[in-house]
Amino acid sequence: MTENLENQSQDDLESHLAQVQTLLAKMRLVEELVHRQGGPRQDLVENLVHKQNLAELQRKLDELHPADVAYILETLPLDERLLVWDLVKAERDGEILVEVSDSVRESLIQSMDKAELLAAAESLDTDEIADIAPDLPHDVIQELLYTLDTQKRARLQSTLAYPEDTVGALMDYEMVTIRADVTLEVALRYLRRLGELPDQLDKLFVVDRDDELIGVLPLKRLLTSDPDASVAAVMVEDFVKFAPEDEAHEAAQAFERYDLVMAPVVDAAGTLIGRLTIDAVVDYIRESADFDMLSMAGLKEEDLFSTVWRAAKNRWMWLAINLATAFVASRVIGAFEGSIEKLAALAALMPIIAGIGGNSGNQTITLIIRGLALGHITQANARRLVVKEIGVATLNGLVWGSAVGVFAWLLYDNPALGGVMALAMLLNLLVAALAGIFIPLTLERVKRDPAIGSSVLLTFITDSMGFFIFLGLATLLLL
Amino acid sequence: MTENLENQSQDDLESHLAQVQTLLAKMRLVEELVHRQGGPRQDLVENLVHKQNLAELQRKLDELHPADVAYILETLPLDERLLVWDLVKAERDGEILVEVSDSVRESLIQSMDKAELLAAAESLDTDEIADIAPDLPHDVIQELLYTLDTQKRARLQSTLAYPEDTVGALMDYEMVTIRADVTLEVALRYLRRLGELPDQLDKLFVVDRDDELIGVLPLKRLLTSDPDASVAAVMVEDFVKFAPEDEAHEAAQAFERYDLVMAPVVDAAGTLIGRLTIDAVVDYIRESADFDMLSMAGLKEEDLFSTVWRAAKNRWMWLAINLATAFVASRVIGAFEGSIEKLAALAALMPIIAGIGGNSGNQTITLIIRGLALGHITQANARRLVVKEIGVATLNGLVWGSAVGVFAWLLYDNPALGGVMALAMLLNLLVAALAGIFIPLTLERVKRDPAIGSSVLLTFITDSMGFFIFLGLATLLLL
Repeated sequence: MTENLENQSQDDLESHLAQVQTLLAKMRLVEELVHRQGGPRQDLVENLVHKQNLAELQRKLDELHPADVAYILETLPLDERLLVWDLVKAERDGEILVEVSDSVRESLIQSMDKAELLAAAESLDTDEIADIAPDLPHDVIQELLYTLDTQKRARLQSTLAYPEDTVGALMDYEMVTIRADVTLEVALRYLRRLGELPDQLDKLFVVDRDDELIGVLPLKRLLTSDPDASVAAVMVEDFVKFAPEDEAHEAAQAFERYDLVMAPVVDAAGTLIGRLTIDAVVDYIRESADFDMLSMAGLKEEDLFSTVWRAAKNRWMWLAINLATAFVASRVIGAFEGSIEKLAALAALMPIIAGIGGNSGNQTITLIIRGLALGHITQANARRLVVKEIGVATLNGLVWGSAVGVFAWLLYDNPALGGVMALAMLLNLLVAALAGIFIPLTLERVKRDPAIGSSVLLTFITDSMGFFIFLGLATLLLL
Repeated sequence: MTENLENQSQDDLESHLAQVQTLLAKMRLVEELVHRQGGPRQDLVENLVHKQNLAELQRKLDELHPADVAYILETLPLDERLLVWDLVKAERDGEILVEVSDSVRESLIQSMDKAELLAAAESLDTDEIADIAPDLPHDVIQELLYTLDTQKRARLQSTLAYPEDTVGALMDYEMVTIRADVTLEVALRYLRRLGELPDQLDKLFVVDRDDELIGVLPLKRLLTSDPDASVAAVMVEDFVKFAPEDEAHEAAQAFERYDLVMAPVVDAAGTLIGRLTIDAVVDYIRESADFDMLSMAGLKEEDLFSTVWRAAKNRWMWLAINLATAFVASRVIGAFEGSIEKLAALAALMPIIAGIGGNSGNQTITLIIRGLALGHITQANARRLVVKEIGVATLNGLVWGSAVGVFAWLLYDNPALGGVMALAMLLNLLVAALAGIFIPLTLERVKRDPAIGSSVLLTFITDSMGFFIFLGLATLLLL
């Protein structure tokens, strides 16, 4: 995959994008002129210019690496994206579909008919077909399964059968196997006969007659050892391997930890069934970081230029949940309306207590979610974490509680109000610390992703409790 | 680096961790007994048991891969972490220091004397020394530079001179170069003579007499081509390369896009100076995702078990900033205390307007920060984004504004209050959308990381403006 990469760098990519955008702008201009003027002669001239522009754009696209075309498609609004997509050579459709994000892929697939989709899918490897399969219409998948040969069909079906976040869903089948009893010389001749090797291949898999994996032969050993030595003598028997059911995020951590480029995937009987490569792992790491970031704001993957209607729908669930919790917090305040009528300063001060509780709880929750993701939090150390966070909350409560207490005292010339403010701040920071620890730990225990929904639950607690503690204390002590 | 990895998987890692924790628990028990009982005879027995436990723990640690020891150190509270660290063989200190997180490394380095630190650093490659250098005392670095040979010293100094987020800071020097005019047969013999090849090596670099990089020879081509062919005939001249000044995040995107395992780093004159490998890139991707996640909550890297005092200090800046903005929002409410005294329902309803504005703005800001990080937002498409987000905010404002309006109307039996609520919601969602776009775009334009500080600025605006719009409208229209 080193085609079309001459002296490639990000700057070049940006300049490609700028050129495509200039060409598109030119075409828009021409279209506008055609619409404004009219008359048969002008039409002809404009048409000619338009065709020249199209041809130039197409030439430009043909030069680019599929991943770069994908990048350009991501940055374009829907109308221009489809125009560019039409200009891409049909035989490149498949590899570009693999590279774009889910939401952009959806928009491209919607513009293609069944024959085009089938042709695009057929140009891909099974693991790549599996990547785009969730976005393909059901009848296309059915027909595709029908056209594939037996081995490919079986592989596609089994890849599709593994849950999304497992090694089985990420693995591919492009591996080179060898027997232990041959010499390296024979192995080298065998590779030369193959003529081409898969990408990201840094080792051969050594299997016995039953396809059971008994070792790996790193290419660097193959290259540096005596050619007369046997594979068995040079191979490594101490290696990282995965089962297809293993969780993808744990495999990703192993790739990071042991600096792997590829690793074999074996079934329970030890039979080699596929391989996991670093490029699939990197894509997974990026996508799951992306997913977490979007999830924390209550978003599913959203194309930058999706329609207003789709974008609004994408955000509704989150806003509705937040609205519901805000209503509850509002009713907590409503219960103290009598107190607020008597001392309106309470209304001005209460958001400070709620807000800082939310910020502080969010810091705790972020550390806990990260600790869980890295596997650093265990039964054995959870109790010490609670002690630490309570300590931090107490310290912060004393320091910042005093600060806001003095502020309220001076502002309203009311020392008792200052005292209530300080005490409420301390208590709400303690609530925030406990919520910040127990919300993600509980979600994790019930096998839910703690990155999703933790913060909305936390804000709900710190808001409602913040209002309740502050207004309650004020009602008891001041009125 | 495949040592100690026999049939390694996450499950094994967790069982290693459990074993270490069990041993530590045993030792704590013994210590407690010694403290409680006393008397010379018991002491002797306990001491013996203690020594046996220590020896068993040490054996266990010796078996583990450095990355696994690092993982275990991360999960342990400070006292046990230092106990385990003492048991690790001195010659492994260096490689383990490279693997742990910054804050854990700091705690380990504090427990080591100068001689130990020097010995640990000397066992590492230059790029690894550069990784841990920020945490080493100044005099250790000085002495280290003195003890290194000329080439290593020059490399370390130049690596340290590159800013943290550049390719120069991530690259290493472990590459294999070859001339274009030799045959593949000669290249193969040369590799065999080298005896060992660096990790993550998937290509040789082809250089001329002046060390100028003229091509790359992928190992897979070397392995599959005719041995009598010349390197020049087989090498690839179309390849991705980087300059040491290139930004690391752009290099990481290129690695993802083109599925690279390693790439050459060349200076402006085209001279080969180093290489960038996928393991360094993966570490960078993970660390920067981590950094972004922590930054969004106003945290610097924090060790799960740092002391209460350090943890509190780590969080103060953020709480102070949030407190300052909360004070300003509080003064906005303060300006309307007269209105609130007349109609206490305003106090109960106003957090809804502010809160939903914050949630909605956060969704916009998340999409924009992500678009900027992926390079999907350009001059040419920014205007269309504004139009889309304004559209989404208007639609959401009409839908959810009506919902909260009806809610307020029914709850307080006051249709005018409902109307004000609906209008305020619509206006604050528009404010949130504009703030959600322009805050990150402005930070990006002034070359600051939009992930840091965006959300606090946004909340400040949606809170203050939410209170101002709602209370202002209510004062004008209801009172």
